[in-house]
Amino acid sequence: MTQTLSVAITGASGRMGQTLIGLVNASDKMTLTGAIERTGHAWVGQDVGEMMGGGALGVTVTDDAAAALADADAVIDFTAPQATIAFAALAAQAGIVHVIGTTGMSEDEIAALAPHGEKATIIRAGNMSLGVNLLTQLTKRVAAALDTDYDIEIIEAHHNQKVDAPSGTALMLGEAAAEGRGVKLADVSDRGRDGITGARKSGDIGFTAIRGGDIIGEHDVMFAAAGERIILRHVASDRSVFARGALKAALWGHGRAAGQYDMLDVLGLSD
Amino acid sequence: MTQTLSVAITGASGRMGQTLIGLVNASDKMTLTGAIERTGHAWVGQDVGEMMGGGALGVTVTDDAAAALADADAVIDFTAPQATIAFAALAAQAGIVHVIGTTGMSEDEIAALAPHGEKATIIRAGNMSLGVNLLTQLTKRVAAALDTDYDIEIIEAHHNQKVDAPSGTALMLGEAAAEGRGVKLADVSDRGRDGITGARKSGDIGFTAIRGGDIIGEHDVMFAAAGERIILRHVASDRSVFARGALKAALWGHGRAAGQYDMLDVLGLSD
Amino acid sequence: MTQTLSVAITGASGRMGQTLIGLVNASDKMTLTGAIERTGHAWVGQDVGEMMGGGALGVTVTDDAAAALADADAVIDFTAPQATIAFAALAAQAGIVHVIGTTGMSEDEIAALAPHGEKATIIRAGNMSLGVNLLTQLTKRVAAALDTDYDIEIIEAHHNQKVDAPSGTALMLGEAAAEGRGVKLADVSDRGRDGITGARKSGDIGFTAIRGGDIIGEHDVMFAAAGERIILRHVASDRSVFARGALKAALWGHGRAAGQYDMLDVLGLSD
Amino acid sequence: MTQTLSVAITGASGRMGQTLIGLVNASDKMTLTGAIERTGHAWVGQDVGEMMGGGALGVTVTDDAAAALADADAVIDFTAPQATIAFAALAAQAGIVHVIGTTGMSEDEIAALAPHGEKATIIRAGNMSLGVNLLTQLTKRVAAALDTDYDIEIIEAHHNQKVDAPSGTALMLGEAAAEGRGVKLADVSDRGRDGITGARKSGDIGFTAIRGGDIIGEHDVMFAAAGERIILRHVASDRSVFARGALKAALWGHGRAAGQYDMLDVLGLSD
Repeated sequence: MTQTLSVAITGASGRMGQTLIGLVNASDKMTLTGAIERTGHAWVGQDVGEMMGGGALGVTVTDDAAAALADADAVIDFTAPQATIAFAALAAQAGIVHVIGTTGMSEDEIAALAPHGEKATIIRAGNMSLGVNLLTQLTKRVAAALDTDYDIEIIEAHHNQKVDAPSGTALMLGEAAAEGRGVKLADVSDRGRDGITGARKSGDIGFTAIRGGDIIGEHDVMFAAAGERIILRHVASDRSVFARGALKAALWGHGRAAGQYDMLDVLGLSD
Repeated sequence: MTQTLSVAITGASGRMGQTLIGLVNASDKMTLTGAIERTGHAWVGQDVGEMMGGGALGVTVTDDAAAALADADAVIDFTAPQATIAFAALAAQAGIVHVIGTTGMSEDEIAALAPHGEKATIIRAGNMSLGVNLLTQLTKRVAAALDTDYDIEIIEAHHNQKVDAPSGTALMLGEAAAEGRGVKLADVSDRGRDGITGARKSGDIGFTAIRGGDIIGEHDVMFAAAGERIILRHVASDRSVFARGALKAALWGHGRAAGQYDMLDVLGLSD
Repeated sequence: MTQTLSVAITGASGRMGQTLIGLVNASDKMTLTGAIERTGHAWVGQDVGEMMGGGALGVTVTDDAAAALADADAVIDFTAPQATIAFAALAAQAGIVHVIGTTGMSEDEIAALAPHGEKATIIRAGNMSLGVNLLTQLTKRVAAALDTDYDIEIIEAHHNQKVDAPSGTALMLGEAAAEGRGVKLADVSDRGRDGITGARKSGDIGFTAIRGGDIIGEHDVMFAAAGERIILRHVASDRSVFARGALKAALWGHGRAAGQYDMLDVLGLSD
Repeated sequence: MTQTLSVAITGASGRMGQTLIGLVNASDKMTLTGAIERTGHAWVGQDVGEMMGGGALGVTVTDDAAAALADADAVIDFTAPQATIAFAALAAQAGIVHVIGTTGMSEDEIAALAPHGEKATIIRAGNMSLGVNLLTQLTKRVAAALDTDYDIEIIEAHHNQKVDAPSGTALMLGEAAAEGRGVKLADVSDRGRDGITGARKSGDIGFTAIRGGDIIGEHDVMFAAAGERIILRHVASDRSVFARGALKAALWGHGRAAGQYDMLDVLGLSD
């Protein structure tokens, strides 16, 4: 008998849902047992593989999330805050793993997850990429280990359609660096460097944003001193890294005590 | 009989003068025959090698530039605009090579060199580094070859004491890119990117400035399109590259017709 | 009336064929007028858009290549050597542009294209990426401009499934560097550096191969001297760059005299 | 009264000794109180600043190491194994900090330091650069956090006079990666990749060595998976980083209990 992890996917028709389904299907450690869409969606009642434009996968898209979760060891959920809170309640009822990649949750919405974390094994992160989570952790450690002889610069590159600079991930890295140094980012942030700037202020954390082509996302955290530099670099080359991180979280969470976890727990790097 | 190039160095006691003397001395293609300082300087009348803190080189520092140039095949000159114009007159009189690395010359001062270029072989550049000159030329060519599907970004990194951003070399590279594209840099320059910027405007040339540690100077010209990037990169790791470029220019100029040249001529890359 | 380029695609059902069809369809400078497959292929007689799993495109897949080419301004062809020779004959008959991205052609097969180049406008390259072709050209120029004070190293990175090292493109870059220097690559190639190697031999061209993850293809050509480095870098982030290069070639070739061209002609960079 | 750290330097006339003296002199946290050379050396009895070719520093070079150490809070020592063991005995007698950057010590020689570590505060490392020590530690952690979906490659670049490949530091990083993964480096090391290699073996740790120009030392540890890469990078741009690390160690050690420490202790990163 195969002992793979039974996995249900929410938002099955979305880009992330389809990516997750493809990866679960390709994995020999997991089996797709549920594909969930909202009531009234055109895919409900159809084979999810056929809806995705390929061969049948033997899993019918359902709007009965409770039933789908009852059959699963884990549910992976990149949807919207209110839907995610509802799924957390069902995951708690089923006593399973709930991996949450939903973004834009307010503090109140996050608080609403807490009671469900008593029965479900919730793993939640704003960015599910293993690499970015790891980089954040390393940044904090290195910033704590080195003094201000090491100038910190955060350099990011993204595609030409990105409308904000620096990226959210760059700011998250900046927060980690500031925390490692025991300062507030707002007090030391140096952005949009241009013109007669004067010498760099010691202790500042600088940000630069490169834009061009279809770069998915690259982040460098540079610590530069007299005579040496340390650079912690992350390159995302495929948006599937977020899905892969979620799958890893689901496998890690299975058999673990109920509670709320993040990707640093999954990585074994939480302080 | 040795057939090395006889070289005189102006401003012998300065940092660049001493670097040049050291390199000429170490070269088997050149012989140091003159070390020039202004009248009244403490080094005048002393052996230049001893003044530099090493062994005697058999060359006495002189304030008689005319005599020093009369004995030389080439004079290398990183001084100040007025001194350089005077040296050009003496180089013309002697009919030798005059390599000029002096910076900050106005258009009038440059014009004042012209008559001397009829008898001296003048090679002048704002930046004597072979690599930067080559990069400038490549940037223009690549910008001309590629259309605006390729977003151009110029990324530079310098030490934490630099007071302006972007660097003069970055702007020179930007000018080269704009010229290659047949646009004016002022019309397409995108600097100090920060906040809600909106999507990148096609055709723009972006600049970013990284500051930290003791980075001597690094410049990237990135051409980023959907699916691919070309990056032209220069890394200066030692300030002696400027002196080395000047020596190369002196060797190249020897035996060449009088006239005014630049480093692209030396590199065989002028259009 | 729109004056877009009418384009036929060979091998329509293949990965490259589908990529080409998608890009032609998305372009406002081209119209898809033909989709060709071999006689007996399941797609023949069906709408090519539907076969690709999307909406109908109004183009029926055909096995009558002669008719498809008669209706087209250009045919783009990434198939196999013998098929490509046959398509060249038809392109000559129709007097249209024939873009050839087919790889693995022998010298005899290439020679067999020659007579068709009298009536067709043939553009052929082993690698259709604009960037790689440009990098090859730049490498030759820079190698010619710089002497052996600049050590040349070619560094490439590819995914972990690649079975050979260095990559074919790295070797092509090495050939370009050697040609620029006027030496034979075989005489100066330094590969597989490991152990007690002794100091680097001046004039050598070194190769290193990095393997990991799903890296599509990255190539650096480094020229390193005392005090400075120039690095020419290409990063492929999407296999569609090869298709994009082919489309650019088709647009460039339209209205041009019959003959045989390569991507350097398209880039305006041939010597 | 100034409360700076009193520092003695061994091997005062050597390149590292002079670098250390310059840095101590420039620091406002330390005062140079001793400059030690072997009996009979020409510098003994002379002012060390004058011997270095600059102004007098008021410190006479001495061959009486015991007296020099009795006056110091710390001695910094980049000499040779036997001399270092003798200095350790004197440091223990004086009860001061002994920073040891001496390389090439055998296990027996290291063992000979142990008794002195009961009374001296010994800090010893094969590489005194903060950055490299930090990188080693990070490499071990990241290798432990990530599974073999992440291919590890160690890429180093050094000047063209280096005779071995990969560098000792690259191998040290490889050992750290292997330790993090719980494997033996010898079992998974993949070096000198060239020719028909077949696909990369999962779990291998690859090494590549780039050689050119006067690169002081650059090390990348790459963890590459499907869709993302993490790169830990160190760039040494000045040999003084080793001296700076030693000074930092001296400051850290002052007031600390006698014992044997390494740079990870100084960085607060020991496990």
